[in-house]
Amino acid sequence: MSVYLHDIPLSQAQERLRQALQEADLWRVLGVEEIPLDENALGRVTAEPIWAEVSSPHYHASAMDGFAVKAGDTNGAQPSSPIQLSVVSNRSSISNLQSPISQYVDTGDPLPGWANAVIPIENVESLDEHGEITSAIRSPASIRIRASVTPWSHVRPLGEDIVATQLVLPTGHVLRPADLGAIAASGHQTIKVARKPKVAILPTGTELVPIGSKLKAGDILEYNSLVIASQIKQMGGEPTRYPITKDDFDLICGRVQEAAQTHDLVLLNAGSSAGAEDFSSRVVEKLGTLLVHGVAVRPGHPVILGMINCQSKIENRKSDNLIPDTSHLTPIIGVPGYPVSAALTIDIFVEPLLAKWLGRRPLELPTEEATLTRKLVSPAGDDDFVRVAVGRVGDKLLAAPLSRGAGVITSLVQADGLALIPSGTQGMEAGEKVQVRLYRNKSEIEKTIFCIGSHDLTLDLIAQFLAEHDRRLASANVGSQGGLVALRRGEAHIAGSHLLDTQTGEYNISYIRQYMPNIPVKVVALVGRDQGLIVRKGNPKGIKSLGDLAGTGQGRGVQFVNRQRGAGTRVLLDYHLNLMTISPDSIAGYYQEEYTHLGVAAAVASERADCGLGVAAAAQALDLDFIPLFQERYDLVIPKLFADDDLLAPLFDLLADSRFQEAVSRLKGYDVSVMGNSILED
Amino acid sequence: MSVYLHDIPLSQAQERLRQALQEADLWRVLGVEEIPLDENALGRVTAEPIWAEVSSPHYHASAMDGFAVKAGDTNGAQPSSPIQLSVVSNRSSISNLQSPISQYVDTGDPLPGWANAVIPIENVESLDEHGEITSAIRSPASIRIRASVTPWSHVRPLGEDIVATQLVLPTGHVLRPADLGAIAASGHQTIKVARKPKVAILPTGTELVPIGSKLKAGDILEYNSLVIASQIKQMGGEPTRYPITKDDFDLICGRVQEAAQTHDLVLLNAGSSAGAEDFSSRVVEKLGTLLVHGVAVRPGHPVILGMINCQSKIENRKSDNLIPDTSHLTPIIGVPGYPVSAALTIDIFVEPLLAKWLGRRPLELPTEEATLTRKLVSPAGDDDFVRVAVGRVGDKLLAAPLSRGAGVITSLVQADGLALIPSGTQGMEAGEKVQVRLYRNKSEIEKTIFCIGSHDLTLDLIAQFLAEHDRRLASANVGSQGGLVALRRGEAHIAGSHLLDTQTGEYNISYIRQYMPNIPVKVVALVGRDQGLIVRKGNPKGIKSLGDLAGTGQGRGVQFVNRQRGAGTRVLLDYHLNLMTISPDSIAGYYQEEYTHLGVAAAVASERADCGLGVAAAAQALDLDFIPLFQERYDLVIPKLFADDDLLAPLFDLLADSRFQEAVSRLKGYDVSVMGNSILED
Repeated sequence: MSVYLHDIPLSQAQERLRQALQEADLWRVLGVEEIPLDENALGRVTAEPIWAEVSSPHYHASAMDGFAVKAGDTNGAQPSSPIQLSVVSNRSSISNLQSPISQYVDTGDPLPGWANAVIPIENVESLDEHGEITSAIRSPASIRIRASVTPWSHVRPLGEDIVATQLVLPTGHVLRPADLGAIAASGHQTIKVARKPKVAILPTGTELVPIGSKLKAGDILEYNSLVIASQIKQMGGEPTRYPITKDDFDLICGRVQEAAQTHDLVLLNAGSSAGAEDFSSRVVEKLGTLLVHGVAVRPGHPVILGMINCQSKIENRKSDNLIPDTSHLTPIIGVPGYPVSAALTIDIFVEPLLAKWLGRRPLELPTEEATLTRKLVSPAGDDDFVRVAVGRVGDKLLAAPLSRGAGVITSLVQADGLALIPSGTQGMEAGEKVQVRLYRNKSEIEKTIFCIGSHDLTLDLIAQFLAEHDRRLASANVGSQGGLVALRRGEAHIAGSHLLDTQTGEYNISYIRQYMPNIPVKVVALVGRDQGLIVRKGNPKGIKSLGDLAGTGQGRGVQFVNRQRGAGTRVLLDYHLNLMTISPDSIAGYYQEEYTHLGVAAAVASERADCGLGVAAAAQALDLDFIPLFQERYDLVIPKLFADDDLLAPLFDLLADSRFQEAVSRLKGYDVSVMGNSILED
Repeated sequence: MSVYLHDIPLSQAQERLRQALQEADLWRVLGVEEIPLDENALGRVTAEPIWAEVSSPHYHASAMDGFAVKAGDTNGAQPSSPIQLSVVSNRSSISNLQSPISQYVDTGDPLPGWANAVIPIENVESLDEHGEITSAIRSPASIRIRASVTPWSHVRPLGEDIVATQLVLPTGHVLRPADLGAIAASGHQTIKVARKPKVAILPTGTELVPIGSKLKAGDILEYNSLVIASQIKQMGGEPTRYPITKDDFDLICGRVQEAAQTHDLVLLNAGSSAGAEDFSSRVVEKLGTLLVHGVAVRPGHPVILGMINCQSKIENRKSDNLIPDTSHLTPIIGVPGYPVSAALTIDIFVEPLLAKWLGRRPLELPTEEATLTRKLVSPAGDDDFVRVAVGRVGDKLLAAPLSRGAGVITSLVQADGLALIPSGTQGMEAGEKVQVRLYRNKSEIEKTIFCIGSHDLTLDLIAQFLAEHDRRLASANVGSQGGLVALRRGEAHIAGSHLLDTQTGEYNISYIRQYMPNIPVKVVALVGRDQGLIVRKGNPKGIKSLGDLAGTGQGRGVQFVNRQRGAGTRVLLDYHLNLMTISPDSIAGYYQEEYTHLGVAAAVASERADCGLGVAAAAQALDLDFIPLFQERYDLVIPKLFADDDLLAPLFDLLADSRFQEAVSRLKGYDVSVMGNSILED
């Protein structure tokens, strides 16, 4: 059977894998092992129900420090007519003693056979042999009581906690600290748990180099196996990371066969190219059966599912596997090469499989409904998983889509959740409600400050410092004007803005009035900063001013890279081009847009452009030269609605924090003297 | 300074500890260690911000398999007027070649210096040297295209994911799988994390015996250290479990001193008696400073907080601690002996401390508002943490209080959350809203079947089997009538009932009409079962019938133990006593009540009573004898509202499952022939 790359729906792909595993008798708990009951049992999954061997307490125990009595002996005791009981030791033969009697017991002591209640020590008067109050309160000759007690009061009866034979925990329970205590209390010192599924991770690709390598163009750092191994570990499996295998068919076949014999699952992480996938599918076809090649899920498309034949597997596994494993098949999953696709493939296909093999419930992330901050387009045929930042702004829970690139691992790092655009829809509009599976719990999300607008390196420092004060900064870079629009829509708490009013020379205020009419705001200066031309080290093209950009200038063939429309830097450029009567069309690259200062610097560093307008810090970051041209002010704009909110308090504290100011002033071209100045307060 | 047992408010106790730690310069991250970037880094906490060393990608990379081109060369290409580009190899010297050119690239390959876009392979026609279509699609002589491309399309520009110098992760971040990938991608191969705080756990108490010991009366299994060590491990600390120390002042002092020198925190887990606490506080007073003795929190009261002096500590810690630790003090917490108190003390006092020492956020459980199912009384002065089962019944989220005994570890196992009754309130009424900190996520809670009413051992088996079908059974035993009342109030999905109508001889129906008027129900038979007298092995008192219970009978002095009012077994007893004209008052122990069959059996096993009426299975469970007297039917009562709910479907499936029926019929005195029979369907 040959299966060609043809995307099938997710549920169908999962079903094919499940069926193949069922046929191979692998759709079940793989094996059971008996482990000692210690803290390493934490997180393991019970493979059998746990029935109590003993009761707890296993005897009638005193629940207090006090005196054991027969309740009947205390009847009639009253404040005005006390009753006196002689005190016996636990070695006394009670047949020799006159009732009423009592005996001192500590908390946890067994009740004497003749007793059925305890009187707490603070409720008795301890008397010496002469009937006088004594300070030997725990060993008096007799006690006097002024109230009766009911039978079984202050006693923990046998079985109060656990009765022998009762069910303590069912099969498939993931063990938590208190569970271990209950298992111990019910008389066990070992526990039978599902053995950890062994998962082999095989990174393949001639272009891959190990973490820590010195990089040259075309090298790709192999860190997928690290992420996947961590995911497997977190899911309760036992990962093995194989070294990188080159794109050599026979080498890969050899490794897969070896891994399949000693593991329960093989993850073949191919390079991300279509060619590399074909390679993986041919390996699976040669060594076993290809079940699925391509799943209609985004990111993740080129997933491969199959079964590998391996005759000697039984031998290799027998030792640790109490449930006999009679299958000679090992499932294999071809995991796409792009890191986001790889990580989501593990979540979607491997997590439910490990759950089945461990006998536990599959992971279910808590789901909340959130409002989408921008339109999303999605292929109608795909289940599309979009990483989103989630935060509460006012009374709305917002989901702000992050980069959708399958190669952008930071989008997973920044994601607070996954929004699913199900197959059958072409996308969703801004403002629509979307179901988000949350990675963080809601209390963390409630402490997230949504920042939008113009990018400044200071925001990274703010994020770093806020983390120390129980706040998270989620920032999206949409340019200064975009930020003000987002504030008007109630989609962020603060916006960073450096919009020059070309009429007045003042920053931001006129734009705020225009884009956020009737919304009271507070505006605070964050930094003063240099704007200038970012050029390559040594400024090989000898650029000195904006005049050198124009084709009509000295004709040096300078390639420019611009910021996007609406960015404050773009406004500044246009303002000065206009002053200098330079036409945008005369500048090569004017319409080539980047969305951040660092994006501009990266374009210059990689020689995609000769220069761009930006801040000094961006040039410094990528070891480029910088030609300062103008100074500008970068403000934080905050709707009054949020300005007094507890959420933002640590941010305002930060602006007065000398440690923070120092960290900012260490960035080249930054002036912190304006920091915290009130620019506007409605 | 001497501090006597005097409960202070929780916040004040926490504040005293914080201040003492601050004075000792221990209210901070304890130390930093550099560890390799591998899957063991999972869950560790970043001790420094992580800034990117390299960009990712670190070159302009092709995002597709295809042909690199200059975008300008494609201008004007249209379906009707294609453009042809010659294909060069990456070894070609382009100065020799005629534009327009193209070059084959795999996904991830660097873009040639002259190119600025990629045309995916599926969008080109590959031609051989004669201009004919060729199947050598990756190595043609030239390509033909019928559409232009814009610059940078299908290219992952340098820094698309990460730009060198950007903040990748802030300090205090708990590492997840994707984070490890991002750290690797940004050029690191090691990472600086907070070192794990070392926590010593010292169980003390002469009455304690290790897990697995053969128990005699008065022995207490020492499993608190296991639970605490697991908690510490889960919180990111490194626990050391010391062996049990007897109640010997000098021995305990020695152990504490030793532990304080090599650990960051000492947890002294005393026996649970008031005497044992005094012991702990004297140890702390001798070796250092006693800060707090007694906190107004339930369960947990006798918490001790203090600081131990240890001169040689600095030496012992230097090796792994990059931040110099100049303190000669080690905090100590006296943890109460009762297991629930112990576990909650760790949650309340140790978790926030470890969070501080690790530099991460303290754990915050998600909180939901739920409706209390019964009245709770609470001392006004205490913060009272009540373990509750949480489930959704209809549209109400319910919190059903579990056992409040500090010795009942199973109450923690069964708890879905903690309801806080804050100090200042005397308790709460049934039906009041209460804030619950949830231990489980909501999807698990939504899969909980709330079962209430009469107890039957079959319910344990149902719980065990349902766990395999993605359902949890939370059962509360309040007797048959209590169950029907709870159903009427909408506080459970199902009730187990075996109420005999003494007029008609029929079970349950007349009671359902009486207690649940106007509520349509479905009633299904669960089992037929024997009821009889549970007596000690060998029946030493020779009991044969109910007649032997009465003092007016053969006068054997038989001590009876009864079920609570409203229990079906109690109804059955009263019915037959009435038939036999035996007065309840003539039965010794008639008013002595137990709430479950097993409770009755335990009372007999422990010789608290000679006999009780119950089911055979309970007698068998505790190895007792059983004298069958009557047969009865035990039904499940389900309001129609829930009967067709998806939630209950696996329960109905179970009644027809032969594996389940077999498991039930293995219990002595059970008859499964009626199982699943429809008794009533409104």
